[in-house]
Amino acid sequence: MSFELRHECGLFGVVGHPEASRLTYHGLKWLQHRGQESAGIAAVNNGAINVRAEMGLVHEVFNAGSLAELPGETAIGHVRYSTTGASCQKNAQPLVLPTKFGPVAIALNGNIVNAPELKEELSAAGAIFATTTDTEILVHLIHRSCQRKFADALVEALQQLEGAYCFLLLTQEALWAIRDPAGYRPLALAQLGLCEVLASESVAFHHPQIRAKYEREVAPGEILKIARAGQESLFPFPKQPVRECSFEHIYFARPNYGVFSQGAAKTRMAIGGRLWEEAPVEGGVIVPVPDSGIFAAMGYAQAGNLPLAFGLTRDHFTGRTFISPKQVSREQGVDQKLCAVPEIVAGQEVVLIDDSIVRGTTSRKIVGIVRAAGASRVHLRISSPPFCSPCFFGVDTPRREELIAANNGVEQIRDYVGADTLAYLSLAGLENVLTNQAGGEHRHCTSCFSGQYFTAAALIEERMK
Amino acid sequence: MSFELRHECGLFGVVGHPEASRLTYHGLKWLQHRGQESAGIAAVNNGAINVRAEMGLVHEVFNAGSLAELPGETAIGHVRYSTTGASCQKNAQPLVLPTKFGPVAIALNGNIVNAPELKEELSAAGAIFATTTDTEILVHLIHRSCQRKFADALVEALQQLEGAYCFLLLTQEALWAIRDPAGYRPLALAQLGLCEVLASESVAFHHPQIRAKYEREVAPGEILKIARAGQESLFPFPKQPVRECSFEHIYFARPNYGVFSQGAAKTRMAIGGRLWEEAPVEGGVIVPVPDSGIFAAMGYAQAGNLPLAFGLTRDHFTGRTFISPKQVSREQGVDQKLCAVPEIVAGQEVVLIDDSIVRGTTSRKIVGIVRAAGASRVHLRISSPPFCSPCFFGVDTPRREELIAANNGVEQIRDYVGADTLAYLSLAGLENVLTNQAGGEHRHCTSCFSGQYFTAAALIEERMK
Amino acid sequence: MSFELRHECGLFGVVGHPEASRLTYHGLKWLQHRGQESAGIAAVNNGAINVRAEMGLVHEVFNAGSLAELPGETAIGHVRYSTTGASCQKNAQPLVLPTKFGPVAIALNGNIVNAPELKEELSAAGAIFATTTDTEILVHLIHRSCQRKFADALVEALQQLEGAYCFLLLTQEALWAIRDPAGYRPLALAQLGLCEVLASESVAFHHPQIRAKYEREVAPGEILKIARAGQESLFPFPKQPVRECSFEHIYFARPNYGVFSQGAAKTRMAIGGRLWEEAPVEGGVIVPVPDSGIFAAMGYAQAGNLPLAFGLTRDHFTGRTFISPKQVSREQGVDQKLCAVPEIVAGQEVVLIDDSIVRGTTSRKIVGIVRAAGASRVHLRISSPPFCSPCFFGVDTPRREELIAANNGVEQIRDYVGADTLAYLSLAGLENVLTNQAGGEHRHCTSCFSGQYFTAAALIEERMK
Amino acid sequence: MSFELRHECGLFGVVGHPEASRLTYHGLKWLQHRGQESAGIAAVNNGAINVRAEMGLVHEVFNAGSLAELPGETAIGHVRYSTTGASCQKNAQPLVLPTKFGPVAIALNGNIVNAPELKEELSAAGAIFATTTDTEILVHLIHRSCQRKFADALVEALQQLEGAYCFLLLTQEALWAIRDPAGYRPLALAQLGLCEVLASESVAFHHPQIRAKYEREVAPGEILKIARAGQESLFPFPKQPVRECSFEHIYFARPNYGVFSQGAAKTRMAIGGRLWEEAPVEGGVIVPVPDSGIFAAMGYAQAGNLPLAFGLTRDHFTGRTFISPKQVSREQGVDQKLCAVPEIVAGQEVVLIDDSIVRGTTSRKIVGIVRAAGASRVHLRISSPPFCSPCFFGVDTPRREELIAANNGVEQIRDYVGADTLAYLSLAGLENVLTNQAGGEHRHCTSCFSGQYFTAAALIEERMK
Repeated sequence: MSFELRHECGLFGVVGHPEASRLTYHGLKWLQHRGQESAGIAAVNNGAINVRAEMGLVHEVFNAGSLAELPGETAIGHVRYSTTGASCQKNAQPLVLPTKFGPVAIALNGNIVNAPELKEELSAAGAIFATTTDTEILVHLIHRSCQRKFADALVEALQQLEGAYCFLLLTQEALWAIRDPAGYRPLALAQLGLCEVLASESVAFHHPQIRAKYEREVAPGEILKIARAGQESLFPFPKQPVRECSFEHIYFARPNYGVFSQGAAKTRMAIGGRLWEEAPVEGGVIVPVPDSGIFAAMGYAQAGNLPLAFGLTRDHFTGRTFISPKQVSREQGVDQKLCAVPEIVAGQEVVLIDDSIVRGTTSRKIVGIVRAAGASRVHLRISSPPFCSPCFFGVDTPRREELIAANNGVEQIRDYVGADTLAYLSLAGLENVLTNQAGGEHRHCTSCFSGQYFTAAALIEERMK
Repeated sequence: MSFELRHECGLFGVVGHPEASRLTYHGLKWLQHRGQESAGIAAVNNGAINVRAEMGLVHEVFNAGSLAELPGETAIGHVRYSTTGASCQKNAQPLVLPTKFGPVAIALNGNIVNAPELKEELSAAGAIFATTTDTEILVHLIHRSCQRKFADALVEALQQLEGAYCFLLLTQEALWAIRDPAGYRPLALAQLGLCEVLASESVAFHHPQIRAKYEREVAPGEILKIARAGQESLFPFPKQPVRECSFEHIYFARPNYGVFSQGAAKTRMAIGGRLWEEAPVEGGVIVPVPDSGIFAAMGYAQAGNLPLAFGLTRDHFTGRTFISPKQVSREQGVDQKLCAVPEIVAGQEVVLIDDSIVRGTTSRKIVGIVRAAGASRVHLRISSPPFCSPCFFGVDTPRREELIAANNGVEQIRDYVGADTLAYLSLAGLENVLTNQAGGEHRHCTSCFSGQYFTAAALIEERMK
Repeated sequence: MSFELRHECGLFGVVGHPEASRLTYHGLKWLQHRGQESAGIAAVNNGAINVRAEMGLVHEVFNAGSLAELPGETAIGHVRYSTTGASCQKNAQPLVLPTKFGPVAIALNGNIVNAPELKEELSAAGAIFATTTDTEILVHLIHRSCQRKFADALVEALQQLEGAYCFLLLTQEALWAIRDPAGYRPLALAQLGLCEVLASESVAFHHPQIRAKYEREVAPGEILKIARAGQESLFPFPKQPVRECSFEHIYFARPNYGVFSQGAAKTRMAIGGRLWEEAPVEGGVIVPVPDSGIFAAMGYAQAGNLPLAFGLTRDHFTGRTFISPKQVSREQGVDQKLCAVPEIVAGQEVVLIDDSIVRGTTSRKIVGIVRAAGASRVHLRISSPPFCSPCFFGVDTPRREELIAANNGVEQIRDYVGADTLAYLSLAGLENVLTNQAGGEHRHCTSCFSGQYFTAAALIEERMK
Repeated sequence: MSFELRHECGLFGVVGHPEASRLTYHGLKWLQHRGQESAGIAAVNNGAINVRAEMGLVHEVFNAGSLAELPGETAIGHVRYSTTGASCQKNAQPLVLPTKFGPVAIALNGNIVNAPELKEELSAAGAIFATTTDTEILVHLIHRSCQRKFADALVEALQQLEGAYCFLLLTQEALWAIRDPAGYRPLALAQLGLCEVLASESVAFHHPQIRAKYEREVAPGEILKIARAGQESLFPFPKQPVRECSFEHIYFARPNYGVFSQGAAKTRMAIGGRLWEEAPVEGGVIVPVPDSGIFAAMGYAQAGNLPLAFGLTRDHFTGRTFISPKQVSREQGVDQKLCAVPEIVAGQEVVLIDDSIVRGTTSRKIVGIVRAAGASRVHLRISSPPFCSPCFFGVDTPRREELIAANNGVEQIRDYVGADTLAYLSLAGLENVLTNQAGGEHRHCTSCFSGQYFTAAALIEERMK
């Protein structure tokens, strides 16, 4: 699944640092796993907002020269994999647009479920959209608000959105960090001397060129305004259950510092341990699918007191398989990236640990690679429940009919991928682990496993027809 | 050390395939770890040799268009990290030079110890060198030979070389694969239908776009001529002890299929097991330095029945730290590439497993990263003996005075890198493992650990003064 | 002046040709002199509009590959030098924007005088502008129109514009060619078999890869809809005097086929002849400033029966001096581009013929070059009246205070540029020639010479304060 | 012919200036017409020679950054169109090669007729050539000389060359400027304060960033050594008749300051005058083929007291037609570059003045363009004799069988190109003009018109078989 599901986007922001764009550059580099299509930074300088946002990796889009053209003490940055909107230059973020409140730079991690409806309404009222992103909608709503103050217009605009989102906005006077009331996507705050730093994942705070001190998560439903003069928080939304994306824990977040104030490594190990309890294999070698299965495999191996063995290696010279939005077969890519270690898998009962199965084609390839290297049997263990329903909250997933678990039972899937045995973590098992990690609180979104949506449910139902 | 020692070069060759250059491209991609500075392919077509060799990674230098300009059924390819010769366009290989036998394409993995002397002699006799590589020397010697036949001239030329080398040569009639009589560097042969394929490491044979069948190693001292008409082997050198590079086993080779007919994964695990025996740490978590320490760590953990834990992760978006020959501090790079997992190392006795310590600066950074993430104690275990003497046989090593182990005892090194304890594998231990893996035969070069050189010893002594 | 005034923009369009974008590419190449900053083509294919518009010359932006991504039988193209709007990627045209009538591609040659007012109104009504071009305004007006039909909305929108414009629009059903009611900017129509072709200058019809047959000018105030089904013309504007840009005749248009149905070569020669009558120099060599003074110099030399001599040559390897919008001094450029021929000018009374003086700095350099090559005296003759007032109708001119003729008499200018004598064509003389060429009709705009504006005069007066 | 014959190469050198490479850059820009394939600069700094030589125009190959990597007070530069040697990166000059005298940088304008023989001899004696240029030969001969001193080795080497050449060489101690004893190719010397400057054409001395004072031509057969300490001239060759290339006068040299101490504009005008005397056309318009026919047309028009008229214009946005060595039809290029002015040629007796006819295909196209624009009759006048024999002295000409005048009489050529009348300048006429210009001395090579070769005649005869 690590080869098939895409991170949605990554955000980074700085307030009050003389080299705001350079810090943002470094932060984005450590969020690069969240989006490899385009990268961008916008910075405020003397009331003007400069921006550079282009197709490419962070280190391809920026260099010393281009950062020098982004002076100023406040900046926001974005890495992107398109969840909606075509993959092209004009959709690269941050977007900078003129409004009646002055220029606004904006970057989004998430998915506005009612975007088509809002766009239609806005268009009927005269709006023209320069991009095909969801991001632009918020700016139009702000600009059209009758409110006199930016903060009021922002609140009014946000109240019209349904979906999952973290926004970073830059106005001439402040940086605005916003998290939707269900808190689907992560956003954390840190301090660096007198500056404030924001990032999708707290690992970015620990970049050696940054070293900011983690402070807290931006809260679900919080609108956090950070200006020179100080911070201010608004909570304009009615209280509602929190639904943090469980896939951030399972796969997306870098394991080092995690998201939603939880470390991902420990969670993945606990998931692996639970997976062993639910679906043990006695006497095999535990082989993680790199890199997504590593920590679950550690937990599985420890629970079963079995040897963890690197029977698959990954070629790291061309980056992720799925980087290219061009028409390259995903399966071919897996082939060229993963390679078995015959000495470890030959003649063995191999227990492959991966994080998910999406279409099944990748898993089928991987099982084939291991078998070709001489494994006597291949047991596939998946550290999440069957992925049977698309995500509408910021993860780029195939349509339901392409999800193998939407239409097939476990036995059929096992047959298709060619494993000798196949087992998934149960949904109850996942929820149990996540709830434990969160100190007993159930606050996770598991819609992709359950098919039950709690936000914009009516719209989603219609979309899936 | 994985951050400080460079793979020297990689070779790939094909005889008799209609898409020889495309196959070479794929083969080079799986040898990319052996050289990231330049990449090149030369192919024979109707008696002409076309070539493209440029600075950059394989996928940067070649695309469908440039491969189409390299038609023909026989090709050789090269990836390079400069061991000698400046890092620049003109030194990119294969070189193609005109000789009295017609054009010759040539690519080298290795190091000619008496290159300066040969160049001086040749220059005095009228030769002018177009590059600063060792590679060019062989062509000059061939061209100046009084022999009438290419094969004889080649033998005569090779007999003047002292050092470590695998050569691939392309003439209008054949591909020539050559390994020095001590067999310092690896070169393997495989079959693909009626074609022959050659590669520095047999992993390249298993690329999904190639799938050639491993046949054998080119033997030490063998000159293997492969033409349409068939193969022919010459063994013109006096028999001498074999000295296969032990560092190929310890670190350089991809673990999947190894080199010198040995799988590297098993060897590294055995080394790790031996390291445990020699220098156990009771009760810690075993953390490999990725990716170089992984298999030794597996062996160490299994021997000690301790948990193997991924307490360090590596960012893979910008390739290897040492790719850039420009003046970027290596240490900064390690910082930005490696990141600790606090949940795994905090409060723990961490046993870091790495393959070597070269200057000490990298290890010092890594120990610092782990400590900063909260490790209570850091035990550094190195899966090779102290690296105290430069390599003259194809590995790019610093000068002796920069090698921390050349001038410091283990305790001093421990103090410098900031570990609580430090232990190396003993030389006897390494030799024992390698000899076992080789079926009881001692056939390894360990000069970098012992300081004793068996080839061109007098010259080397002089160089080191 | 040829080094100081910029062509404003060039338009090309094709309806009904299977290779519409390739034809547009060739047409734009012969309109390249009208704009070297950016180039773009949009083409309709099965109801979708594809576009490529980037910074660079036509042959830099397009190649066989990029043209292949613009299939379809109807296309419009644009080359640009920014008259308004910053010089940047996002302002490159054609723009493609979604409207309630479907996607619209649009390209403009001209200048909307009331653009700031319209933008402010539109913005107050909720519009957000993606670019800083005038071009975008028309699309917003169309989209906001209450009219049901595109044609009606277009008319309604155009009626709100004040200024000088030729627009090419592409909708899913047709290409729309529009010329403002005063006809400031040129646009011509030609036939190519069953196809229709449009171009700013008819020279583009004669490109060897096009060879379309000139039909007529799009008339001032005409909205010409060309669809597969046929053509249709609307004339929704009240009749008003025609004001064709006289600078197109004096300098902008390529001399070969001219604009506004007039050949430019003959007009320039007639102007030169008139200049001789008004300001003869007896006994000198007539030296044109290449390339802008050539045809006026021919006329001047013929009228005076004096030798036309190429005493200045121009280096053509780096394109026009003013191409680069970066901060390169214009004067330095003239130096490096123009070079005198001492054998022709040394010891001579040199009569330099140029088309205009803008700031004076360029003329000063040129006089200096000729003098340094040994001219005994330098007589500067300008084939237009003093340029004393900015253009608001599509030519990129400096602000009034930078125009040397706005604040200085002829004698002061002569002194500044360092000529021995200086004379301009009189305004009466120019009008006389142009009127003659137009068959006795006075239909030219000469606002830049007279300071009198007939369109949007109140707005312009305010702008100039 | 301007579209079919290529300038051979351009040289520029500087001794003793703190910004030697920057000056060389500017000088090469004004010699760009002599070669557009590759550009290069080498500079000596503290005994080391740095070089950059790549495919592309001068301003494409160099920028502030790359010039900064070429420090030092002495530099040579080269622009190239390949006369021999494939068009590729490795043949770009200056070449820098190691010799027993230290590194030598070398650049050539010319053609070594006995290059194949020398290469064969050298190769038989052990030499290997890194490039396919003639240039490299001299370095091999120097390196192999038994002479102890560089100057002696250089003389010995040069004495073995037959052909036409100007060399600039850079050693650690001096710059060496060399002109072959017949003086086929031009090379001039100038002073800039205490520095010496060299250039193929003296126009380069007048670049506004250089402004060096013309001193003299390097003499035929002179070896001029310029070091910090002073200059020294050797004349080691036996005296022989001077044979300066007449085509430099006719077409190659920029008209501004000429070559061989003659101004080219005056010579071309004189040629045009002579052409009128030999082949007048009464009553037509004189239309030069731009830019090559301009000055001859001036002379022709003045002699005949006929109007000089710009009936053909040239598009200057993509540089010279023949820049690209790729397979673009030359004829198509002419089409897209030249455009007639109907107002000037329609209904007229047009006298087209061009400098030469090579294959005839270009002239045929040009006649067609003029005729299509309505000329009633087209009279083609060529300002040189029939070009009937290839050049072996530095001009890139087709093989004899491709030269239309080698196999056809004037009437046949006229018929082929489609002109109503055709006349060439007579050989006697050309020689008369050139001799007059040279103060009565006959010192020109006219081999391409006469078929008689005076240097290496035997070899050339063999080549032409």
